[in-house]
Amino acid sequence: MQPRPHTDREYEGELLRLREQILLMGAEVEAMIAESIRSLLERSSDMARAVIARDERVDRLELQNDALCLSLLARRQPVASDLRFITTVLRIARDLERVGDQAVNIAERVIELNAEPPLKAYVDLPHMAGETQAMLREALDALVSSDDIRAKGLINRDDHIDALYDRVNRVLLTYMMEDPKNIFRATRLQSIAHNLERISDHATNIAEMVVFYVNGTDIRHGRMQDEQNEQG
Amino acid sequence: MQPRPHTDREYEGELLRLREQILLMGAEVEAMIAESIRSLLERSSDMARAVIARDERVDRLELQNDALCLSLLARRQPVASDLRFITTVLRIARDLERVGDQAVNIAERVIELNAEPPLKAYVDLPHMAGETQAMLREALDALVSSDDIRAKGLINRDDHIDALYDRVNRVLLTYMMEDPKNIFRATRLQSIAHNLERISDHATNIAEMVVFYVNGTDIRHGRMQDEQNEQG
Repeated sequence: MQPRPHTDREYEGELLRLREQILLMGAEVEAMIAESIRSLLERSSDMARAVIARDERVDRLELQNDALCLSLLARRQPVASDLRFITTVLRIARDLERVGDQAVNIAERVIELNAEPPLKAYVDLPHMAGETQAMLREALDALVSSDDIRAKGLINRDDHIDALYDRVNRVLLTYMMEDPKNIFRATRLQSIAHNLERISDHATNIAEMVVFYVNGTDIRHGRMQDEQNEQG
Repeated sequence: MQPRPHTDREYEGELLRLREQILLMGAEVEAMIAESIRSLLERSSDMARAVIARDERVDRLELQNDALCLSLLARRQPVASDLRFITTVLRIARDLERVGDQAVNIAERVIELNAEPPLKAYVDLPHMAGETQAMLREALDALVSSDDIRAKGLINRDDHIDALYDRVNRVLLTYMMEDPKNIFRATRLQSIAHNLERISDHATNIAEMVVFYVNGTDIRHGRMQDEQNEQG
């Protein structure tokens, strides 16, 4: 019976590493969102360029994550909860990689904006960014603590972010109507708001996948659930 | 020896079903892109609403796809090429689901545009949409025919779409500067162009994953490849 517990400990160790890796990737993209918005507020193109450079690290983390997932699937042939966890992490990494791309998009818009005089105070944008980051962090916390209640609590939270997004868009349209000189800058800010809105969509997706991983029920796409259960 | 070939045939049948399912999902989102752009050109809000309604079917196809992938992983415990194929399909389905969401976004913008008088002829947008759809179709063809050469050929093709995107954006900025009455409609069209550009990103991702599936080399994120190979 000696080798068996040893192997299990190794396996547990690998699953733990997978957990750590996905958290690290999450922390990295969270920091990228925060820095991209800080570069907007502080009008720092250097900071924006640092965000763009950082994306390479996220890409590398995704490759490492995928390699570990595939290796675990091939060698450990997991079932049930472990299988759901590994395949969930495999998909969540795709969402995180895209979130990184979105932070890069924001940073690119910031560099364009910094070539122009400042427009106005961006009241709702930092608020939107803060909420979006918090959602993402909580979704990943729910993943590593296998907390489906917490994940479920996140699922409708992007309604609030959507409302902020609508308001930002309305205000920016007004600026554009007021003065054609505002147009270019306002479209850049619209693009930043759009990227934040997409990030909150990804956070919602992640939360939905966490619920699936924890209790094996797919709550994505709302009412299709019952149909799926019938097939299952 | 009799049961074994039978099992293999069953397994082959399941893999074939997975192939068919992902192609079906691809065909569905391709049609959604085509219809969303047709609804723009023909100013048909009914057609746009039909695109929005169709997204439910894509969501259902994703759930079916995920269920089959997980079931295959749990029961067949695949390795090597089969394992790469199944996990690739699992991730590609996420990309396709997001492409469906982007077609829905386009349709929503079309409905907003139809409440206003037409702006101008949309020369580059249908062109962009056609190229994007073609890229997506070829990436999925490359997947089901395990054709890495074809997939590689797609990887830099989104440069052309990016160039079209820049031109569309420049033209729309000019419209906005010319007349503030154009602003609202031009921002809607910018959003449509942005969605098409994101779709071409997804098609590139899919092509990269196909190369990985076929020859086991991860070419995503360019130069990180060698590093990964060192890690083995």
